[in-house]
Amino acid sequence: MRKLRMGMIGGGIDSFIGDVHRKAASLDGMIDLVCGAFSSTNERSKISGKSLFLSEERCYGSFEEMILSESTLPENKRMDFVAIVTPNHMHFSPAKMALENGFHVVCDKPMTLTIEEAEELEKLVASTGLLFALTHNYPGSPMVKQARAMVLNNDLGKIRKVQVQYLQGWLATSIEKTGQKQASWRVDPSKSGVGGALGDIGTHAQNLVEYITGLHIKELAADLSRFGDDRVLDDDGNILLRLEDGAKGSLSFSQIAVGEENNLAIRVYGEKGSLEWCQENPNQLVTRWLDKTKTIFTPNGNNLYPESIVASRIPAGHPEGYIEAFANVYKNFATHLIAIISNKKIEIPDYPTVGDGVRGIKFIYASVKSDKNNSAWIKI
Amino acid sequence: MRKLRMGMIGGGIDSFIGDVHRKAASLDGMIDLVCGAFSSTNERSKISGKSLFLSEERCYGSFEEMILSESTLPENKRMDFVAIVTPNHMHFSPAKMALENGFHVVCDKPMTLTIEEAEELEKLVASTGLLFALTHNYPGSPMVKQARAMVLNNDLGKIRKVQVQYLQGWLATSIEKTGQKQASWRVDPSKSGVGGALGDIGTHAQNLVEYITGLHIKELAADLSRFGDDRVLDDDGNILLRLEDGAKGSLSFSQIAVGEENNLAIRVYGEKGSLEWCQENPNQLVTRWLDKTKTIFTPNGNNLYPESIVASRIPAGHPEGYIEAFANVYKNFATHLIAIISNKKIEIPDYPTVGDGVRGIKFIYASVKSDKNNSAWIKI
Amino acid sequence: MRKLRMGMIGGGIDSFIGDVHRKAASLDGMIDLVCGAFSSTNERSKISGKSLFLSEERCYGSFEEMILSESTLPENKRMDFVAIVTPNHMHFSPAKMALENGFHVVCDKPMTLTIEEAEELEKLVASTGLLFALTHNYPGSPMVKQARAMVLNNDLGKIRKVQVQYLQGWLATSIEKTGQKQASWRVDPSKSGVGGALGDIGTHAQNLVEYITGLHIKELAADLSRFGDDRVLDDDGNILLRLEDGAKGSLSFSQIAVGEENNLAIRVYGEKGSLEWCQENPNQLVTRWLDKTKTIFTPNGNNLYPESIVASRIPAGHPEGYIEAFANVYKNFATHLIAIISNKKIEIPDYPTVGDGVRGIKFIYASVKSDKNNSAWIKI
Amino acid sequence: MRKLRMGMIGGGIDSFIGDVHRKAASLDGMIDLVCGAFSSTNERSKISGKSLFLSEERCYGSFEEMILSESTLPENKRMDFVAIVTPNHMHFSPAKMALENGFHVVCDKPMTLTIEEAEELEKLVASTGLLFALTHNYPGSPMVKQARAMVLNNDLGKIRKVQVQYLQGWLATSIEKTGQKQASWRVDPSKSGVGGALGDIGTHAQNLVEYITGLHIKELAADLSRFGDDRVLDDDGNILLRLEDGAKGSLSFSQIAVGEENNLAIRVYGEKGSLEWCQENPNQLVTRWLDKTKTIFTPNGNNLYPESIVASRIPAGHPEGYIEAFANVYKNFATHLIAIISNKKIEIPDYPTVGDGVRGIKFIYASVKSDKNNSAWIKI
Repeated sequence: MRKLRMGMIGGGIDSFIGDVHRKAASLDGMIDLVCGAFSSTNERSKISGKSLFLSEERCYGSFEEMILSESTLPENKRMDFVAIVTPNHMHFSPAKMALENGFHVVCDKPMTLTIEEAEELEKLVASTGLLFALTHNYPGSPMVKQARAMVLNNDLGKIRKVQVQYLQGWLATSIEKTGQKQASWRVDPSKSGVGGALGDIGTHAQNLVEYITGLHIKELAADLSRFGDDRVLDDDGNILLRLEDGAKGSLSFSQIAVGEENNLAIRVYGEKGSLEWCQENPNQLVTRWLDKTKTIFTPNGNNLYPESIVASRIPAGHPEGYIEAFANVYKNFATHLIAIISNKKIEIPDYPTVGDGVRGIKFIYASVKSDKNNSAWIKI
Repeated sequence: MRKLRMGMIGGGIDSFIGDVHRKAASLDGMIDLVCGAFSSTNERSKISGKSLFLSEERCYGSFEEMILSESTLPENKRMDFVAIVTPNHMHFSPAKMALENGFHVVCDKPMTLTIEEAEELEKLVASTGLLFALTHNYPGSPMVKQARAMVLNNDLGKIRKVQVQYLQGWLATSIEKTGQKQASWRVDPSKSGVGGALGDIGTHAQNLVEYITGLHIKELAADLSRFGDDRVLDDDGNILLRLEDGAKGSLSFSQIAVGEENNLAIRVYGEKGSLEWCQENPNQLVTRWLDKTKTIFTPNGNNLYPESIVASRIPAGHPEGYIEAFANVYKNFATHLIAIISNKKIEIPDYPTVGDGVRGIKFIYASVKSDKNNSAWIKI
Repeated sequence: MRKLRMGMIGGGIDSFIGDVHRKAASLDGMIDLVCGAFSSTNERSKISGKSLFLSEERCYGSFEEMILSESTLPENKRMDFVAIVTPNHMHFSPAKMALENGFHVVCDKPMTLTIEEAEELEKLVASTGLLFALTHNYPGSPMVKQARAMVLNNDLGKIRKVQVQYLQGWLATSIEKTGQKQASWRVDPSKSGVGGALGDIGTHAQNLVEYITGLHIKELAADLSRFGDDRVLDDDGNILLRLEDGAKGSLSFSQIAVGEENNLAIRVYGEKGSLEWCQENPNQLVTRWLDKTKTIFTPNGNNLYPESIVASRIPAGHPEGYIEAFANVYKNFATHLIAIISNKKIEIPDYPTVGDGVRGIKFIYASVKSDKNNSAWIKI
Repeated sequence: MRKLRMGMIGGGIDSFIGDVHRKAASLDGMIDLVCGAFSSTNERSKISGKSLFLSEERCYGSFEEMILSESTLPENKRMDFVAIVTPNHMHFSPAKMALENGFHVVCDKPMTLTIEEAEELEKLVASTGLLFALTHNYPGSPMVKQARAMVLNNDLGKIRKVQVQYLQGWLATSIEKTGQKQASWRVDPSKSGVGGALGDIGTHAQNLVEYITGLHIKELAADLSRFGDDRVLDDDGNILLRLEDGAKGSLSFSQIAVGEENNLAIRVYGEKGSLEWCQENPNQLVTRWLDKTKTIFTPNGNNLYPESIVASRIPAGHPEGYIEAFANVYKNFATHLIAIISNKKIEIPDYPTVGDGVRGIKFIYASVKSDKNNSAWIKI
């Protein structure tokens, strides 16, 4: 057994999400960052690498250079997998090249710009047998694990209704015009894809619904909005949902919801019980019942399913947060990969994979199509 | 100045809402209950009346008898107004007859079964000059008053997004089949009208949106559901909203949301700020801002608008609830009526009136029509 | 069966607590206000009475006049009981005189200025057989009823620890110097007694502890403070508690806790479970357990004790508040009194009585004595 | 600039706090674990080390062996500092030896068993000039940093009142008799010291009060309890506090508060405003004001002091928790140490140090002495 070696694509100094990936990857002591193509120039990549205590020769100027160079290193030195943390339009090419060169992949979401690209990656993963983790981090939360286990164990009965929202306010004004880096690429279709907030956070909401309920969204009717001046991509939307097995629902997302920070929240109603979880207060899961008193589960507290317990690192009452949930994606991916490298048979740990990526892109395209047809119902 | 005299139609023993109306009417010491047609038989009406300490001769067997008999009493004895607290199908006739006989009206919602009836009442109110209060009670809450004042004073800036929900779970099972009285008439189109939960609670949500934002819903796209066995009326629904001035929104309501008690909640997002209010925790109004810290208003607390302060009866920190908000409808109606009787000029107090009733019925019909057309956008 | 007739002592226009008493007394339709000695002059008393729609001849200039005059009225007209809502120093005399003249009494707390007065009232109640209700309103809350029932039914196991606090901030500055009426008498020992905030709100905390746990405070160690300029009475304090059966606890009260509105909160820990209730959010009772998930009870929700259910007026999810809890004291007192008048045998309803008043005064004196002895333990 | 090298004393497999220390140390990528004396035998230490991917030769059988061996390694290889994560009785000796051999120290709390030991360490730190961090982790929370900055900037005005509590329930039953390892040493005076829960969590509460207010506790009156069968050390207590500058307060701690997980909460009241923070919901700081609306701060949200902003790693709305706060102690210690190694002058980062350790031990001894004297006031 040894620590895994990670190479990073994107995530230079001042990147928000690159730093999150690094912290998440390092938290459980199973992964070392060994190389990176952090920026689009060799020089800036090396500056980032230096601040991360990397040796200069393993800071590359492009992902192509990194993948090719690392391929030539001896097996006991070269990276095991790449973590792709670039803007959306830069996911597909490095993921494809990494897979084609035998490297496992951790990739940010939404996975690609088009359905075709997404399906191509799905085929590549299948044909190469390599691992692919998509960093939908919210399913990593212990209380989301508990929610899913409760639904799958039929504690709530047949699911009837779902409400999910993902509300942020940071694009309420046109900060992309001030040069704010995070905003600039997200409002640009060439970098973000056909969805704006829809792709950026709407897909988290869609993924969370499907993860917790175990039901696919079958069709949807979307009303998207562009409140920011001159925006071509949506920055807000409301979507009606019809899921498998007769469940109904609604999904609302926004990046112009002034004052909201990162308000992802979900409610699921079955025939016997219901549950509620909010990302900003992630350490409780509220459940309500036909005949019983309202109960509140807490991580590592009483009466949890094993799937939830295993996702907590510390005792009840010691709050874990965003990074810890994110780290559970890495931890489970790493556990899987170590087992493969060590030739051990294990039950495959639970982390989002390339199939979830394909569903996300299809969700984006169905929503955009519905919106263009004045909210007509569109099948995913 | 004297106390007002109220006659009640409906609201016999075991009626939930009749008792609420009586408590709300009595709270501020401005109204005496003097007579009633509490039930459909003379005998049962008298039993109810006796438990309310009424004299037998003013307990009537029908609303027709009550209105006619009271009309013949001397002016200093006869009732001033009727409170109609019957199921929906029994609102129109007594309201019409009361108005035609010179009695002011307080009426439960939804106001009528059809748009035609609603508009007929609207015309009657206009032509008689009599007062008509519709008991949408939630606008009576001090924090809802504050919310409306903040929007109308442009504290939030131009409104962009609204989310409202009204979730209950008491019809999650088919309790109407057990003979439960409240449930039985609500699932019966001949008594409830074309809307089920839509009319019962969806209209409260619609009214709250329009009251707080001051914006009308222009069009909507509805997906209604019938989860209970054999139900012909909706018991759940999700609706997309487009409001005046470009605002968008969504409205979700349910009576099959297991475990929910009376979860009416609203979020309103403007260009500068946003607000959030939940009926089950009515004594706080959360507001969020572009550049300022999140603030929480409390009734009779610091920095409120006068419209909110006047709606509180007790000092900050002493919670008021459902009955107090309901009582504010009666208090403002009574204040208006006393001023008219006393020939005093006052600024007309704020309470929902016949126009709000018309909008509610139109909202119901538009939603049903949209649902029948697979969620097509329908103008109200 | 008839409505009860109430005479009020104190509670003129602008009195906060007089208005609360009237609303609480009227809410359930069992009590009519028929007369009052609202103010210290005949003229001002009549002005108050007029605004309450009382006839002039039953608005009295003093409590002595009221008690004597009402005694001469025919039995079917004269008041049944007095409600004493004056400042503390004006509780004893009218209560004594009312009892001596055959009138039942509802009295505000703290009951008297001295232990001797309190014990004299206790003897008078015993010797006359008249009813005496002390308006500790917080035990009237449905969730406090549930809390008490849970402890008495041993759901929590043997009680080990209690934490209670009652925090307000309205005396944080010296508003008594601005002539604020509520503040002026409360900081004046001749009107308030030997305790300031201690008597005004500390006694509510002491009463709540003893009511919920069913255990008496045996001894205490108090550290009282006077933060306001020139105050001679305490405006803040911290008290260690030792209760019967080995339980321990602490009590904190303040009227200088800036920003606090009316924050009465209690936590009780037993060997098997614990509970938590906050007055500002009165419609939930949080319970925690050795082996079970945290549960939250709501009024009229699932799995409540009958003692709690009977204290709610409306369905679950419809919040009740301060006035409703207060009204439960009146309702239970009225139910008791009606039964006596009607010669019916009933189980005596649950409301605070003269014995609770005696305990409150003894608590005040023990706290003051401990404070004077540098927080030495003093037996109550 | 290079990563720091950490050696760990204690923290073998199954240790809770050792794992927390490792995760906290690794989170920011500034520290590598290079060696350890994880357990009391060489064999078990090596098993722990192996699971942490350490080389066998740097897994030691005792802290003495580790300190001596590491001292002989070349400067570019040997550890920079030790992290002492053993039970209380094993803090002093390794800390002393590490300092005497030129290694910086991170040490768990309470720092030592006696005041004499504590003061000896304080002198050693002064005389050697080495760094010493005490892992009071709660001051690492961004909202605690904001709280302290608000008090020190006089936003709240002069402090008058403090309430702090630290409540756990995990020792409600006598689990030490089942061999539970965490419990066993904590109830044993030879390992825990003169304080039980008092030392384990009471010191966190004392430290938090002094950190946020900037005021020392001058004297205290303590009532300690032993609820668990046969316990000789306290498992619960209530303490009255008198602080510098006339502030008063109370402190309650418990490990028998059934159902509580890790409920550390504090309220601070000044002349102008007040604040409230709860560890279980660490990402909000509630503030209340004389004349302003209640406000709620969130990490990286609007209007924070720089001292708070610098303590957050991710954007507003992305919750951070216990590990992140803990990591801020390591991060600030590491920043300080790197500056010293790099010979850079920086403003000394904010982390608890040996002086805080001395105060904690003095607090424990004063509390025990007061309790033995029936809660007499004792000066710290």
